Amino acid sequence: MTGGAEPAGPVRLAGVDDAPSLGRLLHAFNTEFDCPVPEVAELGTRFAGLLSGDDVLAVIAADPSGDGDDVGFGLITLRPTPYWDGPLAQLEELYVRPDQRSRGIGTALIDRARSESAARGAHEMHLIVATEDVDARRFYARHGFSDTDPDSGSGLLCYLRQL
Amino acid sequence: MTGGAEPAGPVRLAGVDDAPSLGRLLHAFNTEFDCPVPEVAELGTRFAGLLSGDDVLAVIAADPSGDGDDVGFGLITLRPTPYWDGPLAQLEELYVRPDQRSRGIGTALIDRARSESAARGAHEMHLIVATEDVDARRFYARHGFSDTDPDSGSGLLCYLRQL
Repeated sequence: MTGGAEPAGPVRLAGVDDAPSLGRLLHAFNTEFDCPVPEVAELGTRFAGLLSGDDVLAVIAADPSGDGDDVGFGLITLRPTPYWDGPLAQLEELYVRPDQRSRGIGTALIDRARSESAARGAHEMHLIVATEDVDARRFYARHGFSDTDPDSGSGLLCYLRQL
Repeated sequence: MTGGAEPAGPVRLAGVDDAPSLGRLLHAFNTEFDCPVPEVAELGTRFAGLLSGDDVLAVIAADPSGDGDDVGFGLITLRPTPYWDGPLAQLEELYVRPDQRSRGIGTALIDRARSESAARGAHEMHLIVATEDVDARRFYARHGFSDTDPDSGSGLLCYLRQL
């Protein structure tokens, strides 16, 4: 908490009814960073499908003032691994609306994302960050994440390709 | 192909019966790189469970000589995404036994991993590589993978933490 900012509002685990709100937030996230993104309605429809399975979780931060639209979210997928029983968690998205930053909302979201994933047996959480996104890298480091392999100490790069 | 090396043997999509072979190969992979890994039998049991679902694929390279143990494998997970219909593919592991390298087996495995993932509707494949693993980075770059975001051009780092 800094200055006179309001405390973070409640963070809830998303249900299927939250799909439209998640669609709006994911759209706002990509629009802010000039990334191509499907329409809000299409995202909402897809979130409704995703949230009906047990391999996708989302956490949502309500407006701290108690009214208005939700102000942030995290999206987590769970996938199986041969290394342990229970899933590997991937934090696919984490977003707080620009006008609501520096109020602890990101921390509340990531804490809930971690606890919900651990409650489902996940031993590890992965995420991808852009090299240039120094603020995000600092945020994740502060929350115990590292971009080095705990065994080898080597840095870890994400490679991708279209199929 | 280089020199007088034998051509790569056939690559097959793994079934549940291949779980023991996958356990041996994943164990050999981690042992070669001094990474902690469960016992072969435990890995085999877990692979049998993984391969019974529709969110895990494995591809296996047989011994090119036609007898002997399998010589390489790839492990792919499929997870849902809000960005498109169909899954996002993650190449979790790709391994060729040291005595069988430089014979096109890695290429045969990754080609099959890509085609099987695309056939299931995946638009994109991700993987993690250690910064210091120059050979692997060169291999993946040669196969069309990039460690930069196609939209922003920024590098992409993998962060992780234990839960």
